[in-house]
Amino acid sequence: MTTDFVNAETDSTPSELDLARAEFQRELLSAGILIETDVLGLYGRSGLFEDIIDGIDRVVVAAGPGSAATRLRFPPVFPRTSFERTDYIASFPNLTGAINTFNGSNRDHSQLLADRANGESWDRYLEPTETMLVSAACHPAYAQYTGELPEGGVLLDIYGFCFRHEPAIDPARMQAFRMHEFVTIGDADAAAAHRKKWIERGMGILGDLGLDATPVIANDPFFGRAGRMLAANQRDENLKTELTVRLYGDLDEGTAIVSSNNHLDHFGKTFDITTAHGEVAHSSCVGFGMERIALSLLRTHGLDIAAWPGGVRGHMGL
Amino acid sequence: MTTDFVNAETDSTPSELDLARAEFQRELLSAGILIETDVLGLYGRSGLFEDIIDGIDRVVVAAGPGSAATRLRFPPVFPRTSFERTDYIASFPNLTGAINTFNGSNRDHSQLLADRANGESWDRYLEPTETMLVSAACHPAYAQYTGELPEGGVLLDIYGFCFRHEPAIDPARMQAFRMHEFVTIGDADAAAAHRKKWIERGMGILGDLGLDATPVIANDPFFGRAGRMLAANQRDENLKTELTVRLYGDLDEGTAIVSSNNHLDHFGKTFDITTAHGEVAHSSCVGFGMERIALSLLRTHGLDIAAWPGGVRGHMGL
Repeated sequence: MTTDFVNAETDSTPSELDLARAEFQRELLSAGILIETDVLGLYGRSGLFEDIIDGIDRVVVAAGPGSAATRLRFPPVFPRTSFERTDYIASFPNLTGAINTFNGSNRDHSQLLADRANGESWDRYLEPTETMLVSAACHPAYAQYTGELPEGGVLLDIYGFCFRHEPAIDPARMQAFRMHEFVTIGDADAAAAHRKKWIERGMGILGDLGLDATPVIANDPFFGRAGRMLAANQRDENLKTELTVRLYGDLDEGTAIVSSNNHLDHFGKTFDITTAHGEVAHSSCVGFGMERIALSLLRTHGLDIAAWPGGVRGHMGL
Repeated sequence: MTTDFVNAETDSTPSELDLARAEFQRELLSAGILIETDVLGLYGRSGLFEDIIDGIDRVVVAAGPGSAATRLRFPPVFPRTSFERTDYIASFPNLTGAINTFNGSNRDHSQLLADRANGESWDRYLEPTETMLVSAACHPAYAQYTGELPEGGVLLDIYGFCFRHEPAIDPARMQAFRMHEFVTIGDADAAAAHRKKWIERGMGILGDLGLDATPVIANDPFFGRAGRMLAANQRDENLKTELTVRLYGDLDEGTAIVSSNNHLDHFGKTFDITTAHGEVAHSSCVGFGMERIALSLLRTHGLDIAAWPGGVRGHMGL
């Protein structure tokens, strides 16, 4: 079903790119590296795939700030209060995941089960909870820093699952995936320097992994008509650089597998964070898309890990 | 807020147990081991806490089936089609997490943002997606085995985040937590033997961690009036054993940190899994509640890991 040669997103005749993506997906599923589910863009992971993820993470961590950063790990859901402050619902409503649950009585539950037995949806018996799925690994972190930062700001190491509702055949577009981020919150210069440094360092990491990456000025996929202007502004101001790898040759512009972004004072404003000198804090982050890097490795070096270049395996500790 | 000495669940005067739970929560937050959020039962994790989790996992894995098991890892959301087949909405509707997202137009989004600007809820603009939060680590796995099992059945090693909507001050009752499970799907004897073996082996693991655990015949928290009978049946048939540790002395009966359960043919039936001999498959699992084991270690050996017994640290590789 998810391997049908159909472009589920548009229902149009599949393009060469669609076919290439479907073929890569089929290869990964046939090899048992990813495990198919009933949902487009949602996969189980094999032990082998997890070994690759862990190997990538060793390379990322080795190039990272080590004990200079505060390690923070968040579960895959976070408070709506924080989600609201990210302004994500304004910019990316279509990617959002809100959590609903059942708060009703025995009688309500009986009705739910009766509807269910009749093949009807039972969602109308559910109500919103106080949580959302994590939209970007760093989003749950900012609320901890409301108030005044220490002198020199903070440097964070954050690793966790993110959710984006964008069903797709392309295995590189998953609905749930891991992102390892290094984030700085501080003054404007520190945020700009962090972003710049991590473009270079990110390229170094991908080089160690034997990946042929290209830095590209990019924009976030802001929603709708108003979003087009936000995207253009982001590009004009050169705030986001993606490191891209061509998974499908010349059929597209490449897949972003690392992203280094300057948020300017966006989170500083919305989370009321100030520097030790009383200015609104700036922030920036580099995010390593762990599943996408793994897929780039499989696409570049092949599905047989034993045949990968020795240097790459050595860096990864595989 | 989450540290108020108030029983948020009942709004009644706090009991001694409530006070003990709130005090433990306060200690963990003050020490920076867990990180407070706006949501009861939802925490960020420090690097130190993650080191403890990883150490526990090394002990669990060392006692586990190793390469005899198929390693499977699932993201924190899974298909509704699988969720439906677990029958979870019938038994535990109140713990459920359904994912909603925005599928609307530019105009719908403008209205959403206008409502939001007026301080109104925007949930009515969202619609159910095809995914649910993972209710138990093993639930996403069964769909892979619909059909006939290989001779001897399958043995699975599954580790991932679970979600249960049960806001609580007790740090041992988290809304999002990790469970490492070893699952067997096969004939009735294999399922019963797996469950029995893992009660003993689980006790051994907890002994290595220096925890004073007790095996207790238990039941799942089935919802509502009808649930009471299901719970009584489960106890009468001796299908679920929890390994419990007393985090709060004699103030309660202890906290379940490991659970070994025989599902009989429940998942075999609902997921249409048969043995190589054509019988409906049975399944059983042992689940290690990683956060709860970590909290038991902190409660038993203290918040200063450097002062933990050398043997425990040795087992954990800390």
